[in-house]
Amino acid sequence: MKEVALGIDIGGTFTKYGVVDRQGNCLVENSVSTDFTDDVNEYLNNLNAEIRKSLETITEPIEVKGIGIGAPNGNYYNGTIEYAPNLKWKGVVPLAKLVQKIWNVPVALTNDANAAALGEMIYGGAKNMRNFIVITLGTGLGSGIVVNGDVVYGHDGFAGELGHINVKHDGRVCGCGRKGCLETYVSATGIKRTVYKFLADSMDESELRGVSYNELSAEMITHYAKRGDKIAIQSFEYTGMILGQKLADTIANFSPEAIFLFGGLAKAGDFILQPTKRHMEENLMPIYRGKVKLVLSGLGEINAAVLGASALIWKELEK
Amino acid sequence: MKEVALGIDIGGTFTKYGVVDRQGNCLVENSVSTDFTDDVNEYLNNLNAEIRKSLETITEPIEVKGIGIGAPNGNYYNGTIEYAPNLKWKGVVPLAKLVQKIWNVPVALTNDANAAALGEMIYGGAKNMRNFIVITLGTGLGSGIVVNGDVVYGHDGFAGELGHINVKHDGRVCGCGRKGCLETYVSATGIKRTVYKFLADSMDESELRGVSYNELSAEMITHYAKRGDKIAIQSFEYTGMILGQKLADTIANFSPEAIFLFGGLAKAGDFILQPTKRHMEENLMPIYRGKVKLVLSGLGEINAAVLGASALIWKELEK
Repeated sequence: MKEVALGIDIGGTFTKYGVVDRQGNCLVENSVSTDFTDDVNEYLNNLNAEIRKSLETITEPIEVKGIGIGAPNGNYYNGTIEYAPNLKWKGVVPLAKLVQKIWNVPVALTNDANAAALGEMIYGGAKNMRNFIVITLGTGLGSGIVVNGDVVYGHDGFAGELGHINVKHDGRVCGCGRKGCLETYVSATGIKRTVYKFLADSMDESELRGVSYNELSAEMITHYAKRGDKIAIQSFEYTGMILGQKLADTIANFSPEAIFLFGGLAKAGDFILQPTKRHMEENLMPIYRGKVKLVLSGLGEINAAVLGASALIWKELEK
Repeated sequence: MKEVALGIDIGGTFTKYGVVDRQGNCLVENSVSTDFTDDVNEYLNNLNAEIRKSLETITEPIEVKGIGIGAPNGNYYNGTIEYAPNLKWKGVVPLAKLVQKIWNVPVALTNDANAAALGEMIYGGAKNMRNFIVITLGTGLGSGIVVNGDVVYGHDGFAGELGHINVKHDGRVCGCGRKGCLETYVSATGIKRTVYKFLADSMDESELRGVSYNELSAEMITHYAKRGDKIAIQSFEYTGMILGQKLADTIANFSPEAIFLFGGLAKAGDFILQPTKRHMEENLMPIYRGKVKLVLSGLGEINAAVLGASALIWKELEK
């Protein structure tokens, strides 16, 4: 009987899930809609029906040992999703409890960036590391912080909100209701805003002048940077400058062995990595210089979120 | 036979030591000169001779179980003091090893702020807390960070350098060789610099206009604030504003249960506590607001450093 875990990654639009063995092999994976309903029970009934169908496609005998869930605003201590702005379920949703009732196996839940950090530790580039940080650069900026081999959840389960440290007072308006948060500058959305800032500030010609804000994506900015577009390159430089400065402060807090960049904007590779590294080193205290690796995530794109969620429950079952 | 630990707190000028039992009672304490020599062996011979004299004054039978040392730039992993700008011993000094050779008992060493955090956890206001931060406001700003019940040392033993996160690019010159570090604004020295900034910027009358920079101390600034001196009060407000803003970021990293202020500047009480609290709350993400206690250290002044150092070795012996 092969022991497997279910890894579930809940996003605003889609929920991805996979059946993962202890070695990190994904036996099957699939995705379903998250936002077709604002009734969480209806959502879960549909998700569970789909998962059962997927399980039936696996020919070898398996035993589901537990379920790990990564979700925006997921609270590890309570197994709840709390006031997630990108989900239709409002207030505090006791998701882990609801899932446990249906499956009757151990369920653990955390936010998506913490799940990514666990995935990195168990299956990715952070194997054998006990102190490292994963920065997820998607619509926002998330962070999963590992100290002494454990994810930092803090007193209330909400530690690691690096996306909301302040870059600039009275800076860009943030979804959290404040201004100047790091993710308004450094994320797939942040770099879009930066492109528009430079299109406004400068007179440089740029193919980006033909692209609307709604059309623009981080991928397109990378595409134009590769073609030598000045505004695109300048936008990566600016994004890397702010990220590098803030990572220098982060290192003074945690002194990690490595920092991993993950998610949509990280796909830009050296365009984002090089300026970030340069500004990070320039801003570090001498005792930290040249010591902290800044690298792209060692996890593949496709099922990283699912692997991370499954890693959460494997780690829980070890305790 | 009563079990005791030696707690040793090494400062630039004086070294304090005490003989502490498991309940945190200091059976005897004393201090010796640190800077009478630049030969670390000569320093240790003198320190050990003094400690032996102190032990002889204790009438009940005791057994020294271990020695805990707090020192500037102390590295927990290596038991070394590394490139401490305020000590006469240059480079990397293997202090724990040298002390262990003499006493032949377990020795543990960390920096003074980490020792203060352990003291707070074992004897002070952080009993039963597993996630909290101690900020020491002395000549500089130190921080001891506790996550899941353990001090955060990071990958290389140098985590928790909150004094060197950046407040302002091209800000005040810092002893670390960079500019704009938090401790250049928030520390006993930082507030002196702020007083001088306001004496320069404003035309307000102030008794502080009669005090030279060298004479000025944090204690005097508190004294004048109590008398209603506008520059003194404004300086506390400015210091609390910067500390409050940065603590809001710190909370987004660690989500602690409480933050303790400790050391010379913390003696100003509400003058520093109130503006810090106000600006911290104003700058917090909504999910953290009203949740994190900001309080003065629960440790008494006199032997807090020694208690903290002894706490380090008691904790080590528990492992």
